[in-house]
Amino acid sequence: MTIRGPEEPVCLPQGFRFSCAQAGIKASRKTDLALAVAPGGTAAAAMFTRNRAAAAPIIIGRAHLQETRGCLRAVLVNSGNANCGTGDCGLRAAAACCSALARDLKITPGSVLPSSTGIIGVPLPAGKIVTAIPILARSLASGEKALRAFGRAIMTTDLRPKLASAEFSIRGEIVSVAGVAKGAGMIHPNMATMLVYIFSDIKASPAALRRQLQAAVDVSFNAISVDGDTSTNDTALLLASGASGVKLAAAGVETPFADALRGICASLAEQIVRDGEGARHLVRLRIEAASSPAEARAVACSIANSPLVKTAWAGCDPNWGRLFAMLGNSGYPFDPARASIDLGPHRVYANGRALPFDRKAAHELMKGPEYTIRVRLGRGRAALDFLTCDLTEEYIRINAEYST
Amino acid sequence: MTIRGPEEPVCLPQGFRFSCAQAGIKASRKTDLALAVAPGGTAAAAMFTRNRAAAAPIIIGRAHLQETRGCLRAVLVNSGNANCGTGDCGLRAAAACCSALARDLKITPGSVLPSSTGIIGVPLPAGKIVTAIPILARSLASGEKALRAFGRAIMTTDLRPKLASAEFSIRGEIVSVAGVAKGAGMIHPNMATMLVYIFSDIKASPAALRRQLQAAVDVSFNAISVDGDTSTNDTALLLASGASGVKLAAAGVETPFADALRGICASLAEQIVRDGEGARHLVRLRIEAASSPAEARAVACSIANSPLVKTAWAGCDPNWGRLFAMLGNSGYPFDPARASIDLGPHRVYANGRALPFDRKAAHELMKGPEYTIRVRLGRGRAALDFLTCDLTEEYIRINAEYST
Repeated sequence: MTIRGPEEPVCLPQGFRFSCAQAGIKASRKTDLALAVAPGGTAAAAMFTRNRAAAAPIIIGRAHLQETRGCLRAVLVNSGNANCGTGDCGLRAAAACCSALARDLKITPGSVLPSSTGIIGVPLPAGKIVTAIPILARSLASGEKALRAFGRAIMTTDLRPKLASAEFSIRGEIVSVAGVAKGAGMIHPNMATMLVYIFSDIKASPAALRRQLQAAVDVSFNAISVDGDTSTNDTALLLASGASGVKLAAAGVETPFADALRGICASLAEQIVRDGEGARHLVRLRIEAASSPAEARAVACSIANSPLVKTAWAGCDPNWGRLFAMLGNSGYPFDPARASIDLGPHRVYANGRALPFDRKAAHELMKGPEYTIRVRLGRGRAALDFLTCDLTEEYIRINAEYST
Repeated sequence: MTIRGPEEPVCLPQGFRFSCAQAGIKASRKTDLALAVAPGGTAAAAMFTRNRAAAAPIIIGRAHLQETRGCLRAVLVNSGNANCGTGDCGLRAAAACCSALARDLKITPGSVLPSSTGIIGVPLPAGKIVTAIPILARSLASGEKALRAFGRAIMTTDLRPKLASAEFSIRGEIVSVAGVAKGAGMIHPNMATMLVYIFSDIKASPAALRRQLQAAVDVSFNAISVDGDTSTNDTALLLASGASGVKLAAAGVETPFADALRGICASLAEQIVRDGEGARHLVRLRIEAASSPAEARAVACSIANSPLVKTAWAGCDPNWGRLFAMLGNSGYPFDPARASIDLGPHRVYANGRALPFDRKAAHELMKGPEYTIRVRLGRGRAALDFLTCDLTEEYIRINAEYST
């Protein structure tokens, strides 16, 4: 399955229209309001943040999906304000935006899924959004340009829009899947300030979509970390308009659709880490010979969340001792005598001790934009690929200056 | 109980002698070997790192304490090399250093506790240490100057030596307690690259010392975080020579000795956080109304380990929303409607929503060297004081350039 990246023409699913507007939430005067509409309705499945300080749109979105049993008509996203830590007023503000859009589009408020991203603890300026809704609704369009504009309007500290798409044919009918995402910081498994919207024209039930989404998110968005912070607003939404006329095969997750979905999620996850705040190096962690998938993930997180490891990467420093130290911090047993560590092609640690390696060549490798670190734990047969990045002075600059 | 800081004259316990030397482990040519000897023997209790990639000296030290049932004669510390990730060779190297010292002092190797701190994964140059041991043993002295030199020789990235002491009298007899510590990064509960040695001339059993140490460490070294990394070499050692002739009262931890120990540990812990790598602001987290001490600690760690929160502190940015988001990430239930957040005297969040506050005054407060953030969870009666610091570009610079 070929996955098209952000620079390539989009495989555009039928049955959706997109638009964006400048509501004045962002001080930068960039677009900050995005709308996707499925005029014929769409099946939907979503995964939300596990942060227990979940934002108002998460609470409303969950309720709307339950109310409609996973059948939506529209997705309304604002950037620049997370509508989190805003209590009952925040819930009312999110509901008011959904209602205003519903009135304009002549749909039910419950069929609108709201999303927000941006600063936490500042009341959402719902009035600005309500005012912009008629413009937003009038400018809906179905082309690639409209989808790309949607993708740009949901950005916050992102430097680049994130987009991936794929298509496949079943008995001569073409099915398209396209996803957009935002996220550059607060990125961590169980999701991050990460918004992901994946549109397809396949025909599928909300329950089937849910299974597909869970499987794809597990190995993509739940296997990346920029800074270890789990956001209050994370959302991954999968929509299926059915407009292609092709029905999703019942046979589990080994289908062309599953391939496309997994590929798109993997591509978007990688785009997010590549755009990690201040990141200069993409690091592919390959954890092998773990006793369970959970152990592999815990070890990957222990490495990926260590400021000392991440600053060594920033310095292109083959100081693998810091990484070794984190192997003992995963909460699982650790056997130093059976573990090994490879920096790219250089085996630096095995059989309980440091191995001689070409430090200069390893330093050169680490100066590159990406490389792989392979850790074998010698405890079992589970493995995991995990993407992360270095921690640079630029990360500090970006985040020390964000709100003031 | 008055605790004397590093600038004040030391309350020097009897029964100990100290020395240091330059063995050539550190490239900087600073002293890197420190020795403390109790000529008449000393009862000992230690707490070690919970990192499962524990360094060789930790493994040897645990064995020696067990072998001697907590009766030591000497402590041998090197800085510049952690002797971790070094396998069997590392164990042999640590044992060789203990044996060489034991021969010189005519004591058993098991009565020596070894400690190491520095780079991980590099073989310990045991030969350099063995060569320096005769000089080290010959220069032992019992004065304040010798203790201070011991404290300087154990430093790595520390900018300042850490020292605290206290004395009290019981029936006319004076008991002294003095502690030295090192640590500036890799600082996190369950200890950090933190070495702490506390000397007293009280008379106590190893078991009684252990209870005292556990209670004091819990509210000091286990309630601080610089960067969330738990090191492979952490050690807190409490020694009691008995030379004062005063016996520790059996009555639990509510004794003048317990007061002195707690005060010294609290002072050393604060000195460590103040010296946190690149830190410009000491932040006192006060977690209140938690349902349990464990919950209070989890919430404090969730805040103290968040790069987004710590960078906001670096920017003196009263963006409390990031901190709010972390309240939902502790792994415990969170009730936004009952929680409140105070930045110094400014209540910024309560009753489920942002409160108006003087942002300029809050910004001024956060420009100061230290301030308190108080979080009430509204879930119970447990409370915890926790010390942490901001995350600055200087932290990155220090750690991106450490080994190369």
